[in-house]
Amino acid sequence: MATGRTHRPATRSRGIPEATVARLPLYLRALTALSERSVPTVSSEELAAAAGVNSAKLRKDFSYLGSYGTRGVGYDVEYLVYQISRELGLTQDWPVVIVGIGNLGAALANYGGFASRGFRIAALIDADPAMAGKPVAGIPVQHTDDLEKIIKGNGVSIGVIATPAGAAQQVCDRLVGAGVTSILNFAPTVLSVPDGVDVRKVDLSIELQILAFHEQRKAGEEALPDGLPASAAAARESTDKGPDGDVPAVMPA
Amino acid sequence: MATGRTHRPATRSRGIPEATVARLPLYLRALTALSERSVPTVSSEELAAAAGVNSAKLRKDFSYLGSYGTRGVGYDVEYLVYQISRELGLTQDWPVVIVGIGNLGAALANYGGFASRGFRIAALIDADPAMAGKPVAGIPVQHTDDLEKIIKGNGVSIGVIATPAGAAQQVCDRLVGAGVTSILNFAPTVLSVPDGVDVRKVDLSIELQILAFHEQRKAGEEALPDGLPASAAAARESTDKGPDGDVPAVMPA
Repeated sequence: MATGRTHRPATRSRGIPEATVARLPLYLRALTALSERSVPTVSSEELAAAAGVNSAKLRKDFSYLGSYGTRGVGYDVEYLVYQISRELGLTQDWPVVIVGIGNLGAALANYGGFASRGFRIAALIDADPAMAGKPVAGIPVQHTDDLEKIIKGNGVSIGVIATPAGAAQQVCDRLVGAGVTSILNFAPTVLSVPDGVDVRKVDLSIELQILAFHEQRKAGEEALPDGLPASAAAARESTDKGPDGDVPAVMPA
Repeated sequence: MATGRTHRPATRSRGIPEATVARLPLYLRALTALSERSVPTVSSEELAAAAGVNSAKLRKDFSYLGSYGTRGVGYDVEYLVYQISRELGLTQDWPVVIVGIGNLGAALANYGGFASRGFRIAALIDADPAMAGKPVAGIPVQHTDDLEKIIKGNGVSIGVIATPAGAAQQVCDRLVGAGVTSILNFAPTVLSVPDGVDVRKVDLSIELQILAFHEQRKAGEEALPDGLPASAAAARESTDKGPDGDVPAVMPA
């Protein structure tokens, strides 16, 4: 922090704990919503509530960014959006390839939330020759044979795998061989990668499991003849507030 | 915990912190992988590493379940699978409807990870009359006109919204009006729901933002002429270990 390399956000980022990094996108999402409503400033309490984090944790997180807000005024929304975006590396362009253009790959290609965050879909790749040349989300699908050429030609460092489980490891190996160093894996399988490559695995059922837990609890409360209002209220509070309730649909894999 | 209502998992669950609930699916996922490989027991360290959580946190979490393992032997894999599944409510059948059968809805309908966790897709619903009757993942799509009848007829309490943003709030209102009390929202919009209804919102770009952070850090390290090996190593470690690095792709909304 005291190295004076203010032109190097990567250097400054080293001191930020992983848990804080994982919360930065939540803050950014809430701040973007405020920005769209032209709200100029926000208190730590309001922002914490919008992001589903407790406010003490938020203030600690922002202290890593060197952002402390102004007493009685709060945080400047636009400046925080810029600051967090820069910290996350979203102020630069990240070309991404999606491999496996079935329903999920097509849904990801059409997903509006990527482009607005600096993730540009550089290419869509599929193993089915019948798909080659067909446009999905306005981008012509290319064949897996050209994977290495596509990665190198577009300077891609982030790959998204949306293939069936059986194809995922081979695709992963080829992506890594061609220079990809971050992989987002939607295939229901665990991938092996060499050191220096980050993989994050998405399990779409995890969020449903959390909901099931609360459903079960609600059903149990309704069935109670004696009501138990106090503990029921406590249970609701923990559901609504969720200071630590950031749901890990993705885990380091 | 001391109420003696051991036949009521919902009652016992009230004492479990929200953050522990959010980690139970991660443990379950890792345990299921061990179970599939017929591994009979696992140490807290091994299981913690597989789940991407630190082992002290895991032992604390399991203490809420009343599960302490056996010194020198570890935890019984099959029993823990059963215990966590029961705690999450996955030993019962959860009929789920998916509303909005575009690419994303179809991908979710085909997603194998739901059925294996007790989430049975009771119905697929879409507003496009041309879709009605067409099978997706072997289930004929039904029209939105019949939404209330479908929810009530199937005893559905969990709804998944995969519609465009503009349609999501109206669909949400109708689901809630028909008796749905948990909603998983994939639409890129914030939903308003009455008290007593849980909503979890999925943002598929959040995990990419975490990867971008690490990519930026890696790029910064490569570009450093003086190397900085110590801090670079520390940065790698935090990426690989990620004790708190459970990525919130979903947040309470």
